[in-house]
Amino acid sequence: MSLYPKFSFNITHRSAVSGARAGLLKTPHGTIETPAFIFCATKGAIKGAFPREMKAAGTQIILSNTYHMMLQPGSELVEKMGGLHKFIGWDGPMLTDSGGYQIFSLGHGSVASEIKGKRVTHRPKTMLKITEEGARFKSYINGQIFLLTPERSLEIQRQLGADLIVVLDECTPFHVDKSYTECSMHLSHRWALRSLAEFQRGNDGRQALYGIIQGGIYEDLRRQGAEFVNHHPFFGHAVGGSLGASKEQMHDIVGLTLKMLDPERPVHLLGIGGISDIFNGVEQGIDTFDCVHPTRLARHGGALVTADHWMRYEGKGGEHINLRNKIYREDSRPIDESCGCHSCQNFSRAYLHHLLKAQEMLALQALTIHNVYFMNELLKNIREAIRTDTLDIQKKKWAGV
Amino acid sequence: MSLYPKFSFNITHRSAVSGARAGLLKTPHGTIETPAFIFCATKGAIKGAFPREMKAAGTQIILSNTYHMMLQPGSELVEKMGGLHKFIGWDGPMLTDSGGYQIFSLGHGSVASEIKGKRVTHRPKTMLKITEEGARFKSYINGQIFLLTPERSLEIQRQLGADLIVVLDECTPFHVDKSYTECSMHLSHRWALRSLAEFQRGNDGRQALYGIIQGGIYEDLRRQGAEFVNHHPFFGHAVGGSLGASKEQMHDIVGLTLKMLDPERPVHLLGIGGISDIFNGVEQGIDTFDCVHPTRLARHGGALVTADHWMRYEGKGGEHINLRNKIYREDSRPIDESCGCHSCQNFSRAYLHHLLKAQEMLALQALTIHNVYFMNELLKNIREAIRTDTLDIQKKKWAGV
Repeated sequence: MSLYPKFSFNITHRSAVSGARAGLLKTPHGTIETPAFIFCATKGAIKGAFPREMKAAGTQIILSNTYHMMLQPGSELVEKMGGLHKFIGWDGPMLTDSGGYQIFSLGHGSVASEIKGKRVTHRPKTMLKITEEGARFKSYINGQIFLLTPERSLEIQRQLGADLIVVLDECTPFHVDKSYTECSMHLSHRWALRSLAEFQRGNDGRQALYGIIQGGIYEDLRRQGAEFVNHHPFFGHAVGGSLGASKEQMHDIVGLTLKMLDPERPVHLLGIGGISDIFNGVEQGIDTFDCVHPTRLARHGGALVTADHWMRYEGKGGEHINLRNKIYREDSRPIDESCGCHSCQNFSRAYLHHLLKAQEMLALQALTIHNVYFMNELLKNIREAIRTDTLDIQKKKWAGV
Repeated sequence: MSLYPKFSFNITHRSAVSGARAGLLKTPHGTIETPAFIFCATKGAIKGAFPREMKAAGTQIILSNTYHMMLQPGSELVEKMGGLHKFIGWDGPMLTDSGGYQIFSLGHGSVASEIKGKRVTHRPKTMLKITEEGARFKSYINGQIFLLTPERSLEIQRQLGADLIVVLDECTPFHVDKSYTECSMHLSHRWALRSLAEFQRGNDGRQALYGIIQGGIYEDLRRQGAEFVNHHPFFGHAVGGSLGASKEQMHDIVGLTLKMLDPERPVHLLGIGGISDIFNGVEQGIDTFDCVHPTRLARHGGALVTADHWMRYEGKGGEHINLRNKIYREDSRPIDESCGCHSCQNFSRAYLHHLLKAQEMLALQALTIHNVYFMNELLKNIREAIRTDTLDIQKKKWAGV
């Protein structure tokens, strides 16, 4: 019998001209149309938007970070409150990560999510020791010492109760050599086997486990990483480890990794949320993305817009316009006249500019809703373009490339 | 012809046992059932809630502060954007104050609204000079020097375009003697006549002007203040000036002032928003109240609840419970089981406690919605109680007194 009786992933269309595919990822809390974007409710809340607003803006799935939830309020409390879905009031599909990323690469909780996706060049001060057993670290909140093992990460994620969960891996630092990368990958594989054993031990069908492909920037290691996950009963795969020093290298590594992966399992790309990056990922066969970018950008006054908009209004790249810019002071138009989001239906750029200058939190709420709606529209258009083999046209429209 | 062809105030019920009355206050943007509470969108935004959320929580009317809007983004810009209603996306009734309160008693814009309702014991540093002509002050934003005259306040309020507007008065400091209070009242009366003249000069029927009753804590001066406003064609009256050093004195002064006022005009009590204070004001004949308290309290983690709730959960007065309190850490109940607001329908005290501890802005949004809903329910119950002469029962239930 399948490890995942309540889950399935069906690819409904494969592009004739690229690795892109559209599919349906079924979970106990609903079916996700892929490719899909996963929004970050890091500490159990999307910053600035209620679940009903996320739904109204077309959101299919959100994630919470195990690291943050285990430290505050604690996974035992969340379990006692009926699990993460009930606790935070989100009844759709949900993912939790393993907690590893924050422990290995980021020390401070509130900063953690903000710089996710950036290169990891050194260990945080709160990271104490990595052993075969697991990783020892200090809480960024009160200094309390924790040991996160593969089994404990699984246990916490079971208590949280998200639909999609992820094995603990060592998040390999950026600057290390091939030999370290290889050792680290093997450690992650041993941890993945322990994760899988713990998953199987407690599996009640409510959750599906993702394995992570390591191997850094080395093709032969990526092959070993891909072979490892392919040969174990993970429900899906997440591309982890270093993706290189440039966008080009990232695309190369994602491309070669995807070609090696089981073509029937869903693939998640961790921490990527730029518009052109999403198109590139989709073309290589990525099914889901997550990133704090859309909601973080909103909190800095940025509104995601299509290429013709940022070209016309700010004359440069960046995939967004900045409403703090004084050119919007008397601009009575919405962010985007063609956008159907609540903010574009109700507020002008001039008003949003005013709210930002006046430091009113409503600005962040309005921009968050816009950016969430934008991302969901983007992915909807991408799914449709895959079905009609017109990804190039959409890429030109949304990303200008 | 009436100065106010598009406005009316009809008292539909007068209490047999107190000065309380229920009425209908008609404005071009809708009819307000009174007594009503006016929420503060100080800088053109309710902190943490969209207009649609305010509406969904039963809100009839909001106000914006002329002082803040004239400095940022400026009333000319708001006029250019189609007026305050359109600019901020609120299509219901709206009030603006004269700008005087902030100039005379508060220097710093962002602090201004926070301490509204507190005693004024000294002039702010940004207040430069009061002359017969008006008040000269420095912008708290950039130090620019402004002169606010009665005519200019009216002009700004016309540009903003709220339904209900208020004459500029000198906000008399708290510690001054009777002689200063009397001189100040006469200055305010001369300013009120200039305001009225400017109002009549530009009146297009879209706005209705409130006069302010001064006189501090002195009955004879209050009588002069009341006679002054009664004998000039103001649409409504606002109780201004010092209301004394204690709640008891405030109630005495409000009581004696109300008895002297034209019984057919609506009366507004500036800056009062405590639950028992509202009952006392209603019993004396107040029709509308405004205060930052409900929304400010939310931003500090406080949820307004009826007396039985704060007695049961925190065992002391205060008219609210504080969700930061660790007793709510594992409390799976909503703030109030009987409350119909979005927050009580979706979130537990434990979740709100977690969000507050984690410094998530969603906590403030959720508590704002609850407190707004609570105030609107309170006033709805008060209106019903006036019609059925059961104010005492409601006062016991809501305020515990």
